Formats: sequence, C-alpha cells, structure tokens
Amino acid sequence: MKLAISCQLDYEIEQNTPLILMLRPRSGSGQWIIKEEYLLEPSVPVSEYTDLYGNLCQRLFTPQGSFTIKTSAVVEVTEQIDVDFSANFVPVQELPDESLIYLLPSRYCESDKMGNLVTTIVKDTQTGYEQVETIRQWIYENIRYEYGYSNASTSAQNTSEGRVGVCRDFSHLGVALCRSINIPARFVVGYLHELKPMDLHAWFEAYLGGRWYTFDATQTEPKGNRVVLAYGRDAADVALATQFGNMELVSMFVNVEQAQE
Amino acid sequence: MKLAISCQLDYEIEQNTPLILMLRPRSGSGQWIIKEEYLLEPSVPVSEYTDLYGNLCQRLFTPQGSFTIKTSAVVEVTEQIDVDFSANFVPVQELPDESLIYLLPSRYCESDKMGNLVTTIVKDTQTGYEQVETIRQWIYENIRYEYGYSNASTSAQNTSEGRVGVCRDFSHLGVALCRSINIPARFVVGYLHELKPMDLHAWFEAYLGGRWYTFDATQTEPKGNRVVLAYGRDAADVALATQFGNMELVSMFVNVEQAQE
Amino acid sequence: MKLAISCQLDYEIEQNTPLILMLRPRSGSGQWIIKEEYLLEPSVPVSEYTDLYGNLCQRLFTPQGSFTIKTSAVVEVTEQIDVDFSANFVPVQELPDESLIYLLPSRYCESDKMGNLVTTIVKDTQTGYEQVETIRQWIYENIRYEYGYSNASTSAQNTSEGRVGVCRDFSHLGVALCRSINIPARFVVGYLHELKPMDLHAWFEAYLGGRWYTFDATQTEPKGNRVVLAYGRDAADVALATQFGNMELVSMFVNVEQAQE
Amino acid sequence: MKLAISCQLDYEIEQNTPLILMLRPRSGSGQWIIKEEYLLEPSVPVSEYTDLYGNLCQRLFTPQGSFTIKTSAVVEVTEQIDVDFSANFVPVQELPDESLIYLLPSRYCESDKMGNLVTTIVKDTQTGYEQVETIRQWIYENIRYEYGYSNASTSAQNTSEGRVGVCRDFSHLGVALCRSINIPARFVVGYLHELKPMDLHAWFEAYLGGRWYTFDATQTEPKGNRVVLAYGRDAADVALATQFGNMELVSMFVNVEQAQE
Repeated sequence: MKLAISCQLDYEIEQNTPLILMLRPRSGSGQWIIKEEYLLEPSVPVSEYTDLYGNLCQRLFTPQGSFTIKTSAVVEVTEQIDVDFSANFVPVQELPDESLIYLLPSRYCESDKMGNLVTTIVKDTQTGYEQVETIRQWIYENIRYEYGYSNASTSAQNTSEGRVGVCRDFSHLGVALCRSINIPARFVVGYLHELKPMDLHAWFEAYLGGRWYTFDATQTEPKGNRVVLAYGRDAADVALATQFGNMELVSMFVNVEQAQE
Repeated sequence: MKLAISCQLDYEIEQNTPLILMLRPRSGSGQWIIKEEYLLEPSVPVSEYTDLYGNLCQRLFTPQGSFTIKTSAVVEVTEQIDVDFSANFVPVQELPDESLIYLLPSRYCESDKMGNLVTTIVKDTQTGYEQVETIRQWIYENIRYEYGYSNASTSAQNTSEGRVGVCRDFSHLGVALCRSINIPARFVVGYLHELKPMDLHAWFEAYLGGRWYTFDATQTEPKGNRVVLAYGRDAADVALATQFGNMELVSMFVNVEQAQE
Repeated sequence: MKLAISCQLDYEIEQNTPLILMLRPRSGSGQWIIKEEYLLEPSVPVSEYTDLYGNLCQRLFTPQGSFTIKTSAVVEVTEQIDVDFSANFVPVQELPDESLIYLLPSRYCESDKMGNLVTTIVKDTQTGYEQVETIRQWIYENIRYEYGYSNASTSAQNTSEGRVGVCRDFSHLGVALCRSINIPARFVVGYLHELKPMDLHAWFEAYLGGRWYTFDATQTEPKGNRVVLAYGRDAADVALATQFGNMELVSMFVNVEQAQE
Repeated sequence: MKLAISCQLDYEIEQNTPLILMLRPRSGSGQWIIKEEYLLEPSVPVSEYTDLYGNLCQRLFTPQGSFTIKTSAVVEVTEQIDVDFSANFVPVQELPDESLIYLLPSRYCESDKMGNLVTTIVKDTQTGYEQVETIRQWIYENIRYEYGYSNASTSAQNTSEGRVGVCRDFSHLGVALCRSINIPARFVVGYLHELKPMDLHAWFEAYLGGRWYTFDATQTEPKGNRVVLAYGRDAADVALATQFGNMELVSMFVNVEQAQE
C-alpha cells in the first residue's frame, strides 16, 4: 500500500535552542520512500548525519519566535507484517555481531531486572517466536493503555510495576523482557495507519530465526502498514525531537492515510 | 538559492538486470533537501544502503521491457563556492584519518604516474590552495572539452596524454594531480545550475586548511549552485547507475532550474 | 612510562556459555601497545569484532570445566593527564556529530533525573572544565568508596541517593551529572598504575574545548599512567566480560607495574 | 597450527616522513592473535585507526636517521583452506551490500578491461567456485613468476599483457578477472608458512556461496597456514608501508615458522 504520512510541529521559542530531529524516514527493507518533503519555517541551516544505528538525524539551531517543522512523505509499505511461529531462538553464540548491542540493558529497558517477571510470563512457552508473542500478548492484556501516567523518565521497570502506560512504555517493556531471555530486541518509532487516536507511534522488533520481526503490544493483532522513522536501543536513542533547552511545543499534528494514486 | 533538479532515465530491458543507483541526494553541509521524489515505473522492490563513503545507494532488480526512473528534488544550495587562497597545505601527518584514503591512487586516478606532469604545472606555485587552483586552471586551459574521445575506461593518465575529454575526465585528472602532491582529493557527481548543455556533472574537491574545497576544471570561474549526489575516490565509486548486465538506455533527461517559491 | 598490565580470570563452568570479552586494549591517542598476549586455556575458537564505539570485542563459547583467560600487555602511556581549566563548554550546536550520543541518558546514567542535584553542585561555577572538575570533586567528597553496597544493577541515581559505591558507581554519577548540563561524557574502563587495592578500574571522560579530558572521581588529584580497555556510554556497553549463562568466576588477578626495559 | 611470524624493516631517513603502516594483524575468522609485539626504534608517537575495510593502520611521523620497525606475533591459524566446488555463483541482486564494493574496478584491477580475456579462460566452466579456480589455475600456468618485471605501478592489465610478475601481480589479475564476471574479489596481504623465498605475501579471496574463499595463484595447490594482515580492493588499499616522502628501506626481514609450544 502507498501511505501518505505527515507530521507538523509548531513551537514557540524564547531563546535559540539546539535541536536534533529524526523525522526523515529511510528506504529500507519493507518501505520505499517515493516522495518526501521537509520544511522549516522560517528556514534555518540544517546539517544531517547518520547515527550509530543508521538513522538520519537533522541538527539545527532553532530561531526565536514561532517555528514550524513540516514533514510529509509518500511511502510504499508492506500491508502485513510477517508472523512466523517457527522462527527459532538464535543462541547468543550464533547471533550476528551487530545484533549483540540489542541484548544489553539500556536507559528505559532494564533487562537486568526482568528475570522474575519474564520467568512467570514465558514459563510454559516454546523458545523463539512464541516467547516473544507471549510477552507481547501479556503486555497487551496486563498493562492498561492510558495517557498521563508515564513521562519521559518512565522505564520498563516502572511500567512493570505501575501496569499503565502508552505505546512507548509498552514497547520498552517488550524490549526489556526479550533481552532478559537473550533475545535481541530493538525499539522502533514511526507511523501506523489507522492508529487511534492518530499520533506518532512506537513498537518493537525481536531477532528470531535470522531476521527481525515486528511486534506491537498495543494492538490486538498483527498489523502492517507501518512507516519506520528510526531504530534504537530505546526511546533515548530515537527521540523524534531532542531539544537542548526550553522550547514550547504549542501544537502537533500527525496524519497517515492511503495515498492517492 | 532553491534549485529544482530532475533526472529521468528510460531503459529498454531484455532481461532482468541487477542495478545500483546513486540518485538520492543527501542533506549535508551546503545543501538541504526540501523535497524529493523517486519513482520507478513499473514499480519494483528496492533496498537502500549507505556505502563506505556515506552515499545512499538504491539496489534493485529491473523488470523486463520498458523501465523508467524519475527522480526530482528541490534543494536549498549555496550560491557561491568558497574560494580561499590562504587555505594551506595540510601535512600528511596532520590530516584527519578519514581523509587519508583520498591520497591513494584509484582506478581512474593514477596519481602514482603524475609526478612529472604535476611538477611542471605547480613548480612556481605556493603550496596549498594555489596549487590546486593552478592545477584546475591548467586543466581548463590544456584539455579540450569534447565528447566522443573518452569512454568508461578512460583514466586520468589517458586524459593527460590525449588532452581531450569531458567533465568526468577533467575531474579525474584534477584528482590524480592533487593526490600526486599529497593533497587529498575526491570525485563528486551531481547537478550544476546553468550547465551547458544541461547534464549530470562531475567535479572535484580538495582538502586544504582543514576542510574540503570545491574545484571545477570545466568552468572559467568559481560557480556555486551545485547539488551533490555522491562523493568517492573516482567515477568507479560513484557511478549514478551501475548495471550488471545489458540494459539499453534509450533516453535520458536532466534538468536544473531555480525553484518556484 | 611503559606499563606492564595483566589480568587473569579463572572460571568453573558447568555448561558451555556464550561470552563476550573486551580485554584487548587498542593503540590510540595516549597509549601505544608495544606487546600483548591473550591466552585461553583450554584453547577455543574466538572471533573478534569492533563494536559501535570502536572497541575490540572477543566472542567465544566457553568449554565446560576449568577455563582460564590470561591477558597481558606492555603499553607506552602518558604519565600525566591533561588538566585545563580554560577548556570551554562546547555549545550543543557546535559539538561534533559523533559526540552527541554521549549526551543521552543511558542504563546506568539517568541524566534526565539529575537536574536538581547538578544545579546544587555547579551553581557558582564557571561553565566548562571547571564544572566537570567541580562535579568530580563533589563526588569524591560526598560519595563513600566502599565495596558491597552496589551491584550490577546500581545506577547513578541509586548512587546519588545511597552516597556509597565503587569506581563504577562514581563514574556513572560523574557521567550522568555532566550529561545533565549538556556536556558529553563517556565511561571508560581500564587499568590504573598504583591503584589500591589493585583491580580493573573505571573512570570517565568529558568533552570540553574540542577534545576529551580524563576525570577520575575516586582519586584525590589528577593521575596519569592509565591504560584504556574500552569506551562506552556506561558499564552496560563496556563490561569486560559479558556472560550469557551461569559461569562461576573462581578467581581474578589484576596487576599493573612499570615495565622492565 | 600456531605460527610465529615476524617482520623487520630498517630505514635510513634523511627527513622526517609521514608513514602509514598496516602491520598489526587482527583476530578474525580463521586466525587468533595469541601474542604480538610491535616495536619502533627509536620510539616515536603513533596513532592507530581502523580504515574503511576494517584494517588497523598505524600512523607516525618518522624520525631522521636510522629507524627500525619490528613486529612479531604468534597466531593460531587454519592449516587447510576451504575448497568447495559446490560453492555457487551469487547473483548480484543477492549479494550482501558490503560485498558490492568488491565488484568495482580499482587502481590495479581494471576489471572493466578483462572481458575478452576472462571469456577465453572460463568459457567451458561451470559458474561459481569452478570459475575462480579455473582463473587461478590459468594465472598459475600462464604468468611467469619472476621479480624485476613489475613495479608499484603495474596493474592487472599490464600483467595480462606482459605475462610476468610476482604475487602482487598474480593476485591483481585474479581479482580483476573475477570482478569482470561479477564475482566479488578482494586482495589480501599477509604471511604464508613455507613460502619460498620467505617474504610478505599477497593472494586473493572470492565471494561464493555466501562466504569468502581463499585463492592463491602463485601456488600449485591449496595451502593453509596463512596470517592475514589486511584486506582491500587492491594493493593501493593495503600497502603494508605507505610513505609520503623519501625514505630508504635498507633491509627487510620476514620470517614465518611453527611456534614453539
């Protein structure tokens, strides 16, 4: 399917502020960027670099006053995500070098503290895809999706205790639980078609049977039509806008719809 | 200035052929991609990766029959390139690690064979920017710009002997001569506003005084309004379309104009 | 000075276990590896890769039974670390791209939670080197160095509350506090000559005035004669031995002394 | 087998000269560095970096006068190289991204000019491993191994015409012929046990059936017991010593023998 995505951020800025954005999707496996637009109003100099995970990052120094970032794209995406219960657990000694970093604990995914919880969840489960799917479903059933209970400092452990959160928290918990049983897991941010209410979204991927699989603990069932913006260890790596100073986000608008041919 | 660039390649293909393209410009120092479009007709799966030099490369397996690639972009560019006769020669021991590869000879830039020629050209010249500018000017004055005398196998040495070539050959010679006096030099492909006749273009950059400077041996004087598509050691690294099999390019169209606000 | 370093790890292993080691120092600015030895007894196949931070990592699958890892090296090091109170704070918009990752919170360095503490510590301090030195000294004076109060899950926040810990905890806290005021900071593991009691050690570096400076909150005053084994965001990145299963470390021996000429 | 390798370079230097060395072998698939020594006499500051291909490079600025570089290592190596006539040709569209650079022509491997020659050589050959082995054998039988006919500027094309050369030339020709039929091929430098006369050596690798295989056109039959120093596109990338100025190499000594247990 071709998706038309767009995101607009409106700021009021008292003082020039360094800002790092990750709002330019890359073509990769499963998505092809047909068309893209990236506007800053007023226009300011921007540089772009690739981070350690391969994401494109835009650096700029914001102007004072009203500042608007508008991005949009038309992306060819996969309508269905792959589900494969035969995808096996890959023993650590056989994992590719570049996946190993996704086994380590990170700021919001304290996998070193998930041992007891994960044991309860996956105790009767076959190793591999089924473990991750069981984790995903456990989160879906046991964590309440509600705004206002978590913030930028909330971690997987906090969520495992509070049992409430949003997509970011659901994904952190999924990632942390996978890593605690030595399954590489990474945090993904992007767009999801027909998400309700519409917003930017977060989910996670787990490395099984020699490749990455998509999991989304906020959804009843597997859903495709996703556009990835960035991959990382957790939300610290892939904040869509990291500001180094005070900037007021006065409004934000996100839209995803089927593109007109 | 905002430039609207576009490039269309029309192929007739008898047999499915692997193809690697480098037609997606990246935002970087001196250019910001405001808008971009990349269409394949018919649509086929594409994957994209970053090569060793940081360029975005698109990989695909072409269909049989008529196949069209259309790319376009609106890019904010610098109207004037920096000219700085005080930019000094950086001794090899002070060069940044990542520039060292641009001192080595490469397929089309046999810097190991340029010793005699470069000595004649720069003999009374101050080291640094002036050397490169002298090389650039020597090429401009001594190599005849004419199509039909060079091909995909023509190297800097061939051009130094034949004294005729096109932008690719001019740039290879410039690169080879710079490297032969231990100035890192790289080959650049992209678009140039008001190039006559309009086409994709090649020029080169030399590392002086702690940064890269742009040089174009095909032009009388320094001209900005360039959009970089890719950097590399020479044309082998940055072929805009590398095909691994027979594909007939039946027509090609390139355009660069000032963008409408 | 030439330092002779050595480290021996003796394990008793019930079941073959994947293991990742970071025990091979690299030559770099400030240290040159003259001689090195790396023995595994019994010998098993090992592969080596470079992680995202440039560290050399050794991967292996341990045998069952007694297993010993012996590494040693002779390294030319700097006797004094640079101290420069004129090294200024680099505004985020001027930081090199590759330093930005060291501004983000990480597993053991919750810089997002250090705002109040850091304000107290550096409130009357000039920005730049003096801030970091003030942080370093505050830790030295306010955190008690004692074994047994922290473990593999202890983070900077825990240490800021408990006010007790070891070199790892001191360094995590230093890193977290620096990041909270937008100074890139990284965690370092390695050897320190005349450390008492002798052991592997951890300290931190902060990016000031265009380069990295060494800080060690466990020491009264600046001390050189260090051998770096690895750099990372925090101890999660640079565990000298990451084991994925049960392996009993029965003894460990570390030595650092001046090398015989 | 454990091999003890050593290499000593003695220079007489009139003027301080920048020098880049690639004399530190890395542990990797098929070799494990047990012990290593790297001495410079007199001692000078050295920095080390990893190049685009993953090789460790040592940079220094030589002193004037006599200068000696001594490296030695004990390396666990594979006694036999893998030979597998069932390793198939990997179509370009299925090659891993990172192998693609080894399809391109390079300074000493003008694969773009090898079309006629390669067709003669492999015309009745099954695609895949057999093609490369046929190329290797053709070189062995048709190129005379003799010193004094080739130099630092000699390329694969020169060798295909002159029909004489040394290991470097044999390998360049092997690489160029493989690439001309779309088989990724890379140039390797290192040590070979029982090479006669003893010296540093060069050979090549080809990518077949999903991995790299070793080929050596200077030998009658497959021989293991090799220590790799560096991989690259050709000798330009992996010169063991690249000097940027005049330095006289007054003597050179290389030794490879079985290590004493």
